[in-house]
Amino acid sequence: MSILDKINTPLDVKKLHLDEMKELAQEIREGILKRVNTIGGHLGPDLGIVEATIALHYVFNSPVDKFVFDVSHQVYPHKMLTGRKEGFTNPDEYSVISGYFNPQESEHDPFIIGHTSTSVSLATGLAKARDLKGEKYNVIALIGDGSLSGGEAYEGLNNASVLNSNMIIIINDNEMSIAENQGGLYKNLKELRETNGKCENNFFKTFGFEYFYVEEGNDIQKMIDILEKVKDTNKPTVVHIHTLKGKGYEPAVLDKESFHWHLPGFLNNNECDMQEGETYDSITTDYILKKQAKDNTIITINPATPGACGFSKEFREKLGKNYTDVGIAEEHAVAYASALAKNGAKPILAVLSSFIQRTYDQLSQDLALNNSPATLLIYWGAISSADATHLGVFDIPMISNIPNIVYLAPTCKEEYLKMLDWSVEQTKYPVAIRVPFGDIISSGVEDTTDYSILNKFKVEEQGEKVAIIGVGNFLQLAKEVKQELKLKSGIDATVINPRFLTGVDKDLLDTLKQNHKVVITLEDGVLEGGFGEKVARYYGSSDMKVLNFGASKEFTDRIPLEKLYEKYHLTKELIVKDIQNVL
Amino acid sequence: MSILDKINTPLDVKKLHLDEMKELAQEIREGILKRVNTIGGHLGPDLGIVEATIALHYVFNSPVDKFVFDVSHQVYPHKMLTGRKEGFTNPDEYSVISGYFNPQESEHDPFIIGHTSTSVSLATGLAKARDLKGEKYNVIALIGDGSLSGGEAYEGLNNASVLNSNMIIIINDNEMSIAENQGGLYKNLKELRETNGKCENNFFKTFGFEYFYVEEGNDIQKMIDILEKVKDTNKPTVVHIHTLKGKGYEPAVLDKESFHWHLPGFLNNNECDMQEGETYDSITTDYILKKQAKDNTIITINPATPGACGFSKEFREKLGKNYTDVGIAEEHAVAYASALAKNGAKPILAVLSSFIQRTYDQLSQDLALNNSPATLLIYWGAISSADATHLGVFDIPMISNIPNIVYLAPTCKEEYLKMLDWSVEQTKYPVAIRVPFGDIISSGVEDTTDYSILNKFKVEEQGEKVAIIGVGNFLQLAKEVKQELKLKSGIDATVINPRFLTGVDKDLLDTLKQNHKVVITLEDGVLEGGFGEKVARYYGSSDMKVLNFGASKEFTDRIPLEKLYEKYHLTKELIVKDIQNVL
Repeated sequence: MSILDKINTPLDVKKLHLDEMKELAQEIREGILKRVNTIGGHLGPDLGIVEATIALHYVFNSPVDKFVFDVSHQVYPHKMLTGRKEGFTNPDEYSVISGYFNPQESEHDPFIIGHTSTSVSLATGLAKARDLKGEKYNVIALIGDGSLSGGEAYEGLNNASVLNSNMIIIINDNEMSIAENQGGLYKNLKELRETNGKCENNFFKTFGFEYFYVEEGNDIQKMIDILEKVKDTNKPTVVHIHTLKGKGYEPAVLDKESFHWHLPGFLNNNECDMQEGETYDSITTDYILKKQAKDNTIITINPATPGACGFSKEFREKLGKNYTDVGIAEEHAVAYASALAKNGAKPILAVLSSFIQRTYDQLSQDLALNNSPATLLIYWGAISSADATHLGVFDIPMISNIPNIVYLAPTCKEEYLKMLDWSVEQTKYPVAIRVPFGDIISSGVEDTTDYSILNKFKVEEQGEKVAIIGVGNFLQLAKEVKQELKLKSGIDATVINPRFLTGVDKDLLDTLKQNHKVVITLEDGVLEGGFGEKVARYYGSSDMKVLNFGASKEFTDRIPLEKLYEKYHLTKELIVKDIQNVL
Repeated sequence: MSILDKINTPLDVKKLHLDEMKELAQEIREGILKRVNTIGGHLGPDLGIVEATIALHYVFNSPVDKFVFDVSHQVYPHKMLTGRKEGFTNPDEYSVISGYFNPQESEHDPFIIGHTSTSVSLATGLAKARDLKGEKYNVIALIGDGSLSGGEAYEGLNNASVLNSNMIIIINDNEMSIAENQGGLYKNLKELRETNGKCENNFFKTFGFEYFYVEEGNDIQKMIDILEKVKDTNKPTVVHIHTLKGKGYEPAVLDKESFHWHLPGFLNNNECDMQEGETYDSITTDYILKKQAKDNTIITINPATPGACGFSKEFREKLGKNYTDVGIAEEHAVAYASALAKNGAKPILAVLSSFIQRTYDQLSQDLALNNSPATLLIYWGAISSADATHLGVFDIPMISNIPNIVYLAPTCKEEYLKMLDWSVEQTKYPVAIRVPFGDIISSGVEDTTDYSILNKFKVEEQGEKVAIIGVGNFLQLAKEVKQELKLKSGIDATVINPRFLTGVDKDLLDTLKQNHKVVITLEDGVLEGGFGEKVARYYGSSDMKVLNFGASKEFTDRIPLEKLYEKYHLTKELIVKDIQNVL
């Protein structure tokens, strides 16, 4: 019987001797490796936090004491100690247990968390509620992997530090963000590591935190010692621990960035399954490299997720000083891009759909209000089977209702590259481009559109009675719907590629009134506040029938894509039925 | 001839002797006082920064050297030295020259800025573009009035500190935010002041900034000396200056909070023009006080704008530990409220419409995804003649398209109080309430609605043919439109108060199909992504005609309200004409 077999609740951890805990750490690592090798997931962060997590559960009393893990992607060991080890030992359960905090799974997870830099703010709220109610227990935030650079973390630190009661913040310093750490703050962390926490400049002490440094963050006994020491403290306290990201799996230690999150199969050397040939990522980096070779004012910006945008180390090195990873700091990224554009540079900021929402006010005030001609590339904008914390369906309502921004939705390689180059070279508008999601599509025809004529939709196929507006990724679906409709009812529909998400083509929509009865919109994102509603509003006073298809306003959590498409009527068969119902 | 008479460009400042500059400071103060006394505006921040601004223009060479003023409400002296003194000396020009940076007014203003904490991020972008282009000049950010606590400021500091070239950040430390400063950071600033910048803990040095402290920030010569010293530096440098907010006008020094921004008339002792009787502010604070007396888990939160919500000093003191001013830190405010609610407290977070957009991701991830039953009060949500930086028209699209949040639009005192109490006591949803804007309206009838039945619209007046949905503030307009329509066309319209902004009442909308041909929506906010479009989408497949009225997607800048109403067809006459056109 393994040690892990005996662990059903955190109480079981408390019964272990040090040697058993060390063995448990080994078993936990095996579980993490097997799970990630089978279904993919966060590897390095979890391998690095094993000992600290065991010590946390040995010393504290969860769920009375409350843990808030930042991003909660370092939560695998915690899950294995809180009744969910099956998610790491039983392949049938791998996908049942999520990779993040999930209060529905366990009372040991206080929040759903997936975006970074939230832990200290949330923990401060938990602690304040405790104090108001006159209760006594420990509140512990664990933050690492570069999350400290996000503004919300700082705003939280500023107020946590004056809480005047129990609050323990564990800084899990593994020397890394997803890629390298960025910025002056991380130089200070380095200096603190190198001086065993004793250097004069101490970021945390400037806020007034009690501060402890532990060099051996992967030593269970040392971790137990420090946690015993700060347990039940009555003042805001920072415990800065130095851990090894990827510990226990040498490749993850050697290449921390690649193994931060990893696809399955690495243990079986199946790593070469990388997509071959062109991708939207590869044509983007090719474009940037060529462009920058001719124009030194091109500057590429990314907030700490270069891998997700296909920005390899080699690519970043080639860009040199014309590449800025701002760290996890989307607000700064947008303001920085805006100012670069204002001062004559040509910034290209690459951000995931799920993370662009971390910077609404900067999009509005720093960028749009100033009409700065920066280019934003929005990746992974699509309905998907992602975790509830990482959906890419909200970017259209979020971006497209801000004045001045031009939000473009290319449908193929040629359009994308044309839009990208237009955006980079023009000087009138802030432009966001929703990078197509999925395999590359080529129209085979060079795009010669002048995108400075805003909100001009493109008629891809002229027909009658029914017009199908397919936004971005969904132009293909629009074409399929046309075929299905022809087959089922003999109608030869018009297919339209709007290309612009930030306005409607009034002339075209008016023209459609002549020989169309129904206009449908297909949108790879949430309907509420999105593109389709603008078309519905435009036709509100006319006889035109409008049907909008897209995602419902909801947080879906790892729902298979086919199920979502079925639910939202995003299949050609269901769409045609709906059309027939209104004809 | 005064000194100011001779100042037409910053070059003229450079010709002055110290004595003349001192006289100039006096003249600038007089201009500020007269202008604010006539049209209102930011007083304390501008009175405090006079000497520093003179020194900046004496030492640096604007617009080659570039100044970025945070919030840009400390920009009055800068404007007077850069060709816009008429905005402070000639009453006819007071309202022509805005109270913020405005690139259309002058090349000395690099950006439109009105929200806080952006200066360092923007300056970093300017500096980086300069470096890419191989140019040489100084980039100077000036930040103060509590703006340092905002996440964007910190994200900017983190990257500015590793810029490795010229970048000067002036911390204008006047010991105040709008109200008191909050958080551990400001304790550090205090310690720095008290030790003449020499204490061991130094927030700025932890990032690696070169650091200088100037106790006499209102001494022109001392300011010139330090600025000459850091001019043309090749490394990121912080100059921490201690100034007196309100300097030169004793009442503003004695009551810094009240004179941060002030209404006109204070010099003439016309201060007693305060609104008498009940206001939405006063019934809110009354409610909170009564509620907290019975329930110690009520906690009121505000991000540094208590005055704007009617939270007087006396009120805040009465709330005691059940009040948290988080400082300028809206992201933290929302996460903190969410966690308070999760841990059994009853948080009420008060934020202005223009500032709630500083925290979209926290609304989505920390609050909505976790379904935390916190209450958000959204103030000043309305079409208005405000500056482009402070419009209250975007909150409906911003909030209402996030899943799980219930966004309510009360139309009178009774509804508001009922909604507020329902929200505070329920435990299922995050609830935002758009606090009515303007004079209080009383229906005279107690509201007994059960708001836990979501998206139930209220028929205020039953009619036929035309249904007018008046959202929040615009229910009154809806009633006027009904009367006008009756007068003009004899139609007795239905008037509907939707109350919910986050969904439509499908049953009611379906019922309307029986004897209504047109539904119109009136929305005191931007149309794009807003409430009306949801109604348009719902009726898209039916024969119902829908007309949506509201603001266009644009940044308006100090446009008189009547002009906006005219432009948006938000008068009863224009609306009735539009209705007649579709009947």
